[in-house]
Amino acid sequence: MYRDRIRLKSLWGKVVSAEEAALHIKDGMTVGMSGFTRAGDAKAVPLALAERAAHERLKINLMTGASLGNDVDKILTEAGLLERRLPFQSDPVLRQAINRGEVMFVDQHLSETVELLRSRQMGPVDMAIIEAVAITEDGSIIPTTSVGNSATFGILGERVIVEINLSQPLELEGLHDIYIPTRRPFREPIPVVTPESRVGLPSIPIDPAKIAAIVVTRKQDSAASLQPPDEETSAIAGHLIEFLGHEVKKGRLGNTLQPLQAGIGTIANAVLHGLIDSPFHGLKMYSEVLQDSTFELFDAGKLDFASGSSITLSAKAGGQVFPNIGKYKSRLLLRPQEISNHPEVIRRLGVIGINTALECDLYGNVNSTHVNGTQMMNGIGGSGDFARNAHLAIFVTKSLAKGGNISSVVPMVSHVDHNEHDVDVLVTEMGLADLRGLAPRERAECVLRNCVHPSYRELAGDYYRAALKRGGHTPHVLEEAFSWHVRYQQQGSMLPRKLNVASV
Amino acid sequence: MYRDRIRLKSLWGKVVSAEEAALHIKDGMTVGMSGFTRAGDAKAVPLALAERAAHERLKINLMTGASLGNDVDKILTEAGLLERRLPFQSDPVLRQAINRGEVMFVDQHLSETVELLRSRQMGPVDMAIIEAVAITEDGSIIPTTSVGNSATFGILGERVIVEINLSQPLELEGLHDIYIPTRRPFREPIPVVTPESRVGLPSIPIDPAKIAAIVVTRKQDSAASLQPPDEETSAIAGHLIEFLGHEVKKGRLGNTLQPLQAGIGTIANAVLHGLIDSPFHGLKMYSEVLQDSTFELFDAGKLDFASGSSITLSAKAGGQVFPNIGKYKSRLLLRPQEISNHPEVIRRLGVIGINTALECDLYGNVNSTHVNGTQMMNGIGGSGDFARNAHLAIFVTKSLAKGGNISSVVPMVSHVDHNEHDVDVLVTEMGLADLRGLAPRERAECVLRNCVHPSYRELAGDYYRAALKRGGHTPHVLEEAFSWHVRYQQQGSMLPRKLNVASV
Ligand SMILES: CC(C)(COP(=O)(O)OP(=O)(O)OC[C@H]1O[C@@H](n2cnc3c(N)ncnc32)[C@H](O)[C@@H]1OP(=O)(O)O)[C@@H](O)C(=O)NCCC(=O)NCCS
Ligand SMILES: CC(C)(COP(=O)(O)OP(=O)(O)OC[C@H]1O[C@@H](n2cnc3c(N)ncnc32)[C@H](O)[C@@H]1OP(=O)(O)O)[C@@H](O)C(=O)NCCC(=O)NCCS
Repeated sequence: MYRDRIRLKSLWGKVVSAEEAALHIKDGMTVGMSGFTRAGDAKAVPLALAERAAHERLKINLMTGASLGNDVDKILTEAGLLERRLPFQSDPVLRQAINRGEVMFVDQHLSETVELLRSRQMGPVDMAIIEAVAITEDGSIIPTTSVGNSATFGILGERVIVEINLSQPLELEGLHDIYIPTRRPFREPIPVVTPESRVGLPSIPIDPAKIAAIVVTRKQDSAASLQPPDEETSAIAGHLIEFLGHEVKKGRLGNTLQPLQAGIGTIANAVLHGLIDSPFHGLKMYSEVLQDSTFELFDAGKLDFASGSSITLSAKAGGQVFPNIGKYKSRLLLRPQEISNHPEVIRRLGVIGINTALECDLYGNVNSTHVNGTQMMNGIGGSGDFARNAHLAIFVTKSLAKGGNISSVVPMVSHVDHNEHDVDVLVTEMGLADLRGLAPRERAECVLRNCVHPSYRELAGDYYRAALKRGGHTPHVLEEAFSWHVRYQQQGSMLPRKLNVASV
Repeated sequence: MYRDRIRLKSLWGKVVSAEEAALHIKDGMTVGMSGFTRAGDAKAVPLALAERAAHERLKINLMTGASLGNDVDKILTEAGLLERRLPFQSDPVLRQAINRGEVMFVDQHLSETVELLRSRQMGPVDMAIIEAVAITEDGSIIPTTSVGNSATFGILGERVIVEINLSQPLELEGLHDIYIPTRRPFREPIPVVTPESRVGLPSIPIDPAKIAAIVVTRKQDSAASLQPPDEETSAIAGHLIEFLGHEVKKGRLGNTLQPLQAGIGTIANAVLHGLIDSPFHGLKMYSEVLQDSTFELFDAGKLDFASGSSITLSAKAGGQVFPNIGKYKSRLLLRPQEISNHPEVIRRLGVIGINTALECDLYGNVNSTHVNGTQMMNGIGGSGDFARNAHLAIFVTKSLAKGGNISSVVPMVSHVDHNEHDVDVLVTEMGLADLRGLAPRERAECVLRNCVHPSYRELAGDYYRAALKRGGHTPHVLEEAFSWHVRYQQQGSMLPRKLNVASV
């Protein structure tokens, strides 16, 4: 019954168990695996590999599109399989191993990984493992719910293992648009001029002789664990929609806005969800991950087209969308993450990028990755690809974390992923700071006024005033710049004891 | 005799004195002025404006391409004329006013300023002032030694003042390639596919009715104040050329390398100069500023083509090049800085970007702008446009500054302009750190081993070991991260007293 999914009959003999397929992977290999924001990840071979690692020395360098589901990163970490991991992850167990220095994690802009492989600045990829809905008559691979880096892994990989996933609907065929930039020095412009531009192939073209094994699975993608919108995320969405309305009034945007990108996670999803009740219409998305809100916007008649690199849905939305994917198919496109996140296309289209910050500072710098400047959370992901080149680079965050013991607006961020040159707008539930065209001192006043939670406002004002006395284009009291973070490390709260309600 | 330079005769009547032209500029106006790295700046009208400011209230928002020569920024600052200044400057007097908070300086990626103007997120430009070699029969403007932002200032400006500079050779005509991206949502790919692609017009097309005044000048561009290569800059060049040779050997680059970009200043110029004695040939540049080294490479037969946004030469080189510009013209092109620095083109061509850092840190973050995290030096310029999108993003710096009282390699940079995600290679005279594909802890070991000056090596090692005890993906001791900077502020040296030779 899987045979109709392997249309090149000469490949039928390649079908083996996951265990047999995993034997193709040797100690020290670099493996490129499908998977982007838990969608379309290889699900069987990595687990078989983990089994093997219990009995023999086995370490690999693992590259993916982005994060994996099905606890794959957890299981690989616990099996001690991971020597090096890139370019993104979001697994709590792997994260701890990274932070202990046991796994070398290379945190990259998601558009750049395959560029480095192609120019042989990294790699080579010894083995690609790609989840597919089917293999075509000419041996090319039809991906499932994500494209990620799969196309280039497949094309550059020495060998390829394909996981045919029978639980992924065949209707996904035709959803993908596989375009690979031409070789330098003969590289041509990427011909994407609107989110719906179809410029490539519906499948990943590879030499079928490279296929080492085919494994048949039925395991589903992990569902997204989105929290429903709460008071704060709704307030953030409200501020943002008001701001966009203001841009329309000023004639800087039309009522259809410009193509939207929204990061992964609860806040970004809530913000997009908020557009359902907005006056905007005929919207388009040029994003990397398409979450529940994308389909809610389709259903509400607000969204005309969505281009992404993956579809990652909650259990509920997944149950509604995938069985009816045919209904959405003409308005959807999944691209390699190199193209969904390509600076060239993002700048050309004038994308409005909405991403989540861990923390931001008075001057508009954003930390997306490092708690207290040292502990990796997930990685920069595509936020830099979008923020640097967006028409509007918007960062959202709740003003407080950890029950108020952390202010997400600090004097100086403890790690910089997006700097003052790249951040146009900051939004917390308290309000919105429009930083465009402002000098650092003006930005600080704007952020103080609009984004800081009242419980930290006086403290932040004190810091800024002390910094002003020192002077400078970007005033700081260097020896105090991280005092909030240090206080949190030492006392469990960024608030000094006298202000800390918990300690009263 | 200037009349042959104003080929649209109906404009002859517009010729006035600089003083009269300056009267068109009113208090509160936003002025867009030509000038990029001291080349092709307006030279007469801004000085007349400064005169006026002595007698009346006059404040302007001044935009340029990049830095100005002829002390224009100094004179405007001293006249109290500048309310707001962007996107770059390099004048000691203006810099002080910025650091005192008297002039609001907006430090931008050089490719982005006109994008913000075009989308009305900044602006409007009330008056453009553009230096020209001539005005054509249809009233369009032929720039001089830079294009910078002049084209968009001219096109978007309400009115335009032209400074015809008779000392700029008429042979500059034909050197410029003025391409303006088409309007969103109909924006097309930028058709530049190699440094020599000519895709635009030889002059800036404007409605001649917008020309408010024409002023005739003879003042020359300021010469670049380049220092000759010294032992350290030669060592930096040596390390870099060895590295590039290694890349060729590994098959990652051909002997013609990929298009080169080099930042402004002594170190970058010395590095390019070093290529004269390298094994590479058939080189091309896709850069913003073309310095002495560009023409030395032409003369040495090493360079085939150079695309830039300005030509900034030392007095000596200027005396040789400009009278013979015809000799180089077929191998040169000056573009708007939006195009010379465009992410789309830089990524397509796979540029090798070489820029100078003020300081870098153990993890590969780079500070290009803020001394001690607070005092603005010049601005980020084009370094971010290039570093983010380059095939190789290389940063160079001497390992010491201020006679050894400053280490340019620090535990944590006090301001981040280019972060770990964007920096491929760091070079000091001590050696080269190839950071590609490395995790932060590996990067720290590589930088410690290769880049730190011996007098700071133990101190840096101590910091790193203490940080490792704290753990984390990017280990730091937050309360000590800026201790070197604080020590320099308080004691005049980053070295503790016991290690400080000066205090023995
Ligand atoms: C920044 C990021 C971690 C926020 O995630 P989120 O799920 O939207 O936001 P949350 O508010 O739920 O925060 C996630 C966690 O960070 C913690 N956190 C938030 N702000 C914090 C801060 N300033 N300091 C320390 N921890 C913080 C939260 O408490 C929460 O912890 P928990 O998991 O223990 O509950 C996430 O968006 C991310 O990884 N971004 C980088 C990648 C990216 O932007 N990609 C773009 C396209 S996919
Ligand atoms: C970083 C930059 C200032 C270096 O300039 P440079 O002339 O090449 O290098 P120098 O070593 O001569 O340093 C310039 C000054 O900075 C000082 N300096 C260098 N490193 C320093 C450090 N770590 N801390 C404090 N001061 C430092 C030098 O002492 C020197 O001071 P001086 O002018 O009082 O003598 C300059 O390249 C720049 O502005 N870069 C940002 C813009 C850019 O990269 N554009 C790219 C394309 S144009």
